[in-house]
Amino acid sequence: MADSEKNQTIEILAFAGSLRKGSFNKAVLRAAKELAPEALNIKIFDLQGIPLYNADVEAQGDPDRVAEFKEAIDQADGLLIATPEYNHGVPAVTKNAIDWASRPPKKAPLNEKPVGILGASPGMTGSARGQSQLRQAFEFTNSYCMPQPEILVYRAHQKFDDAGNLTDEATRKYLGKYLEALSDWVHKFT
Amino acid sequence: MADSEKNQTIEILAFAGSLRKGSFNKAVLRAAKELAPEALNIKIFDLQGIPLYNADVEAQGDPDRVAEFKEAIDQADGLLIATPEYNHGVPAVTKNAIDWASRPPKKAPLNEKPVGILGASPGMTGSARGQSQLRQAFEFTNSYCMPQPEILVYRAHQKFDDAGNLTDEATRKYLGKYLEALSDWVHKFT
Amino acid sequence: MADSEKNQTIEILAFAGSLRKGSFNKAVLRAAKELAPEALNIKIFDLQGIPLYNADVEAQGDPDRVAEFKEAIDQADGLLIATPEYNHGVPAVTKNAIDWASRPPKKAPLNEKPVGILGASPGMTGSARGQSQLRQAFEFTNSYCMPQPEILVYRAHQKFDDAGNLTDEATRKYLGKYLEALSDWVHKFT
Amino acid sequence: MADSEKNQTIEILAFAGSLRKGSFNKAVLRAAKELAPEALNIKIFDLQGIPLYNADVEAQGDPDRVAEFKEAIDQADGLLIATPEYNHGVPAVTKNAIDWASRPPKKAPLNEKPVGILGASPGMTGSARGQSQLRQAFEFTNSYCMPQPEILVYRAHQKFDDAGNLTDEATRKYLGKYLEALSDWVHKFT
Repeated sequence: MADSEKNQTIEILAFAGSLRKGSFNKAVLRAAKELAPEALNIKIFDLQGIPLYNADVEAQGDPDRVAEFKEAIDQADGLLIATPEYNHGVPAVTKNAIDWASRPPKKAPLNEKPVGILGASPGMTGSARGQSQLRQAFEFTNSYCMPQPEILVYRAHQKFDDAGNLTDEATRKYLGKYLEALSDWVHKFT
Repeated sequence: MADSEKNQTIEILAFAGSLRKGSFNKAVLRAAKELAPEALNIKIFDLQGIPLYNADVEAQGDPDRVAEFKEAIDQADGLLIATPEYNHGVPAVTKNAIDWASRPPKKAPLNEKPVGILGASPGMTGSARGQSQLRQAFEFTNSYCMPQPEILVYRAHQKFDDAGNLTDEATRKYLGKYLEALSDWVHKFT
Repeated sequence: MADSEKNQTIEILAFAGSLRKGSFNKAVLRAAKELAPEALNIKIFDLQGIPLYNADVEAQGDPDRVAEFKEAIDQADGLLIATPEYNHGVPAVTKNAIDWASRPPKKAPLNEKPVGILGASPGMTGSARGQSQLRQAFEFTNSYCMPQPEILVYRAHQKFDDAGNLTDEATRKYLGKYLEALSDWVHKFT
Repeated sequence: MADSEKNQTIEILAFAGSLRKGSFNKAVLRAAKELAPEALNIKIFDLQGIPLYNADVEAQGDPDRVAEFKEAIDQADGLLIATPEYNHGVPAVTKNAIDWASRPPKKAPLNEKPVGILGASPGMTGSARGQSQLRQAFEFTNSYCMPQPEILVYRAHQKFDDAGNLTDEATRKYLGKYLEALSDWVHKFT
């Protein structure tokens, strides 16, 4: 790739797989927005308002919020997803976003889209099993998940202040490096 | 177990991980209700009306439909879940039911609950990967999933008539055996 | 179950999914042998000498060490498996034991066998993803995996002394409780 | 990429996760060698002779066959792996190859390596669950798995003649297309 291309801004659509206001995963994305390299522009999409997937509803046309979501994915150069782990797996809220976005009518927006996955949880595994299941979804949609580095924010409740700011220095540093790697990953496909 | 116990009716709560009216998985459960051994009473619960899990909402008290669902699980001797596979994994609709049911306030109703999983899909794998992910959820909730037999209803569109009746004789027979095995499985824990 | 049955000794066959002499997972099993309730008798089987599964070799008759392994499983009331995690999944050494044991000629010894899984690793996830994949194998073999409690011995290098003794008090205590739960689990099926 | 680069031969190292002489997965790779586009050169490596992973043995230096395997991976532009499914997961034979190849001393040869996965099995799922587990391994090794197309050769015993030739026309055609896609995938990273 030419140097000039390297300097172009990459547009990343980010979302957290949680509807909770105080979600650690929403907080991780806010930190990512702040720590991203200059050429990586992160736009956060709130999944609030996207209903549970229903093929009968879809057949009448995508609900507005779903249409906005699919359009936002389509416009982005890549995705960044912060997912909790519920019950040893990917939460319904995260998976529901993919279940909608993977569908026609318009050309599926996830096709050939680069994706970064990370996650936070209060336990020790840092949402590892949730992230593993989520990656499997992107095999089907023909999206390109960055394999490494991985970020498992364990004991998340110790790493943010009460206002939801990421205060743990080691995690901040590692997140910065992760975003540089994501930038390189997206560049491989554009 | 005494013979008298063997003759007691087992109450099974069944649900399909789909909101679509013409869902093959709903149709499988209707067939199961019809083919079940006399001592296995299957009650079907429709997940319509259960919102996406949101811890902030939960903190205000379970929504009515969620409370009804958790109560129905609590009353049942065992569960029967028919799940599609979306994007190589468990659909959000199926997982969302578990994400709610796995939570307090009252003693988690899934704890020590026997569970049978099966599924139907139009493709060849018969929802195999969706079922695998769903089983992982029940490790966390300390539920008891029956490991075998497994039912992967592949090419589902060829096995039901237009009214959603299971017409494939081999699948009907196998489903009957599956339900006998489920009856034995639930008896191990009651 | 009658009280008299509760007092019968349970025979557990244990093995670690590692061939390394200083394996943390072997060390966990030695600790388990020491901490087990009186009525739980743990016999440790070393997988050294079991070759990689080869159906052509099997067709000539099980190699001696494989035959001993399958016989030992058959004699046991339940299994206890300590598995590392390699490459986000179950190590070949662990899986190979199952790939052999799941096969005829004699009635598959894993059928209806209660199983406890745990694991240790130097990282933070304590072999969580390795354990998840291993559980999936036992769906196929119709074995009965105890869903909870789970033991993820993370940062294993900090929890044993140089001689391979489990010195971390919290882990010792939790392992003791795990083994009581395993005892109850096996009793459900005998 | 310049057209001149597109025309360079891609060297693919292929291996089957089975030691059985009559393995369907070995047979798929022979068919792949025959059906590959001219610019895709497939070299098949037989895993026979690679022992079970043992860190104590590795510490003395890689066994000869392991060293040859790692060297062959290092020389290749990409990998093609045909894996059976045993016990709902990746067979030990397949995983063992990765468990060795993922290790130092020399720079891990799997790092940033493009990978194509496919598989054959006598059942209906065509090794789907084995393939899913195998993909998870390559997250850890930072290898680049092609997400789509996927090849699940189900009812494999009906698709080869007695000499192990792939005779099913639909599968031959699809395999040809898969190999073109693999060629494009490898080109993304070179």
